[in-house]
Amino acid sequence: MAQSRATIPVSEAAAPFYAGVDVGGTNIKVGVVDDQGRPMSWLSIATHVERGPDDAIGRMRDAVAKAIDQSGVPREKIARVGLGSPGTMDIEKGILLTPGNLPGWWHYPIRDRLAQACGMSVTFANDARSATFGEFWVGSGRVFHSMVLFTLGTGVGGGIIIGDLLVTGEHSAGSELGHIIIDYNDDARVCSCQQRGHLEAYASATSVVKRAHEALAGGRASSLADRMAAGEELTALMIDQEAEKNDPLATEIVLETARYLGIGIVTAMHSVDPQGIVIGGAMTFGEHETATGRKFLARIKEEVARRAFPELAEQTKIDFASLGGDAGFIGAAGLARRDFIQQIGKAK
Amino acid sequence: MAQSRATIPVSEAAAPFYAGVDVGGTNIKVGVVDDQGRPMSWLSIATHVERGPDDAIGRMRDAVAKAIDQSGVPREKIARVGLGSPGTMDIEKGILLTPGNLPGWWHYPIRDRLAQACGMSVTFANDARSATFGEFWVGSGRVFHSMVLFTLGTGVGGGIIIGDLLVTGEHSAGSELGHIIIDYNDDARVCSCQQRGHLEAYASATSVVKRAHEALAGGRASSLADRMAAGEELTALMIDQEAEKNDPLATEIVLETARYLGIGIVTAMHSVDPQGIVIGGAMTFGEHETATGRKFLARIKEEVARRAFPELAEQTKIDFASLGGDAGFIGAAGLARRDFIQQIGKAK
Repeated sequence: MAQSRATIPVSEAAAPFYAGVDVGGTNIKVGVVDDQGRPMSWLSIATHVERGPDDAIGRMRDAVAKAIDQSGVPREKIARVGLGSPGTMDIEKGILLTPGNLPGWWHYPIRDRLAQACGMSVTFANDARSATFGEFWVGSGRVFHSMVLFTLGTGVGGGIIIGDLLVTGEHSAGSELGHIIIDYNDDARVCSCQQRGHLEAYASATSVVKRAHEALAGGRASSLADRMAAGEELTALMIDQEAEKNDPLATEIVLETARYLGIGIVTAMHSVDPQGIVIGGAMTFGEHETATGRKFLARIKEEVARRAFPELAEQTKIDFASLGGDAGFIGAAGLARRDFIQQIGKAK
Repeated sequence: MAQSRATIPVSEAAAPFYAGVDVGGTNIKVGVVDDQGRPMSWLSIATHVERGPDDAIGRMRDAVAKAIDQSGVPREKIARVGLGSPGTMDIEKGILLTPGNLPGWWHYPIRDRLAQACGMSVTFANDARSATFGEFWVGSGRVFHSMVLFTLGTGVGGGIIIGDLLVTGEHSAGSELGHIIIDYNDDARVCSCQQRGHLEAYASATSVVKRAHEALAGGRASSLADRMAAGEELTALMIDQEAEKNDPLATEIVLETARYLGIGIVTAMHSVDPQGIVIGGAMTFGEHETATGRKFLARIKEEVARRAFPELAEQTKIDFASLGGDAGFIGAAGLARRDFIQQIGKAK
């Protein structure tokens, strides 16, 4: 994954400014972004899910205050806050519903509590859709007016932008692309949501690790087995590293994952036919920077070329995301900016 | 399928008026529609694909003139013409690309030729998306501002409306829902487009007939076999009729088709999360009007309840289309109206 971007000083920045908050199951990333999507400061704090949401809100407020201080922007120049969080959620009401990654936070009115704590209006979004908006605004997708993002991590998230608009859905469940069905059969793999055949059951880090375990249990030789014998835990990162050293099993698993993702991409292309497809998240196998990342992308494109309508396969751009782990807070800030602009009636 | 709707006289109609042309591989349906989407006249002519597109354009022009005459609307009150046609196509350029159902018409500039022939501006759209717009405007979808339509016939077509906008896609291939992948495996069924595992290979009339042939060849007893022995050709309509008489094989095939369609619907729900799903096209097994149609819809809903996020399964409405074979020309007229309104700057 790309490193966090350099921040810019207030003297080079364009007003107004926005704070973005990206809540994850492990960490919360907070940053201040200028009107052109350039980060001016950022910091990361532990989520401490187990301490409950009220405790986290207090620490988010402090983190936002600290990020504002670090940015050098006077607090009154911060126009609005954006908040991205794992779902499920009710965007309109601003509440979490039953997010699997945030046990104990269910049905919590997170948007209004953060707004109260910060004394600012808050725009609320799903984490994957925040990241999508970030890539669309200032990342790999900035050249597109329609795009689909797949974000690969523990799960698979998604985001769809059509005609410059982010598809939230009628029940806050638009763009849940990890849960499109790529295998309807009764023996298909089981997803984290307990359903069978979902893309996430094939293209997530969880699936990558599971498939490696299965292959090793089936007797496949691999340098993965050596590292596990030395006491290491099998992870998607380890598979990436061993693929980079040309371990055949690790390489096979990476390419298989590309194939599955390519299948999901074809369904997205035949549904919304976007200008571009962007692939982000923590598990992108080194992106452009390693041979494994390049093989991963090439295999995705090969599967799309094999399965999509030829004119779409030729014309639709497929590339990695470019904001790395910053996409979430930048995108949340971008959504805050979108709402602020709509509010004051100013054009984009 | 619902019968063609009654037409209304010009004395009850609301100006301005639009002509809609719905081109199919066998027939072309032409009608005049008022500003509220009510048909005032319609007629059907043979396509005669083999005579080539120039010949068809001449007959479309005559059919439009006749429909206008029959409607009682003075010709100068017709604001615009809408044209729906099978793809593939390039909407922006107004040309057909390589439509499988229209051999000999490839790369034909159908929009501008019809405009020239009729002396009016023409709005050009894919046939399934025209039908979607018709259902959205004045059919089953009129209560929705976002919906997904699946149209079941020889193939499976689709249409997606989000925030009152029809998703055309960047390469005129948006909403090609017959070609989403529901089975990525190498032994998946082959689609009319030669790819494997597409929804169309499971939920089209073509697939229904093929699966019945397979079951009969496998030795299954069925009243279908008796009718074939009497010299009839096996069709989806025959399967519908025998299911209505409780033939077990015919019933099984209808319910299996519902299951496959339900799987495609879940992928659409988890992608765009619409308010409603509408099912139309020639093969809807009698819709609400027969026991088979009601069983078909119930089985679709059962599969969706089993596989979709519970809150979506509960809240997303699923129903049959209501315009029958008129959806295409009404929707084409509706798209012409949309463009006319945009042109003159009048709000909806």
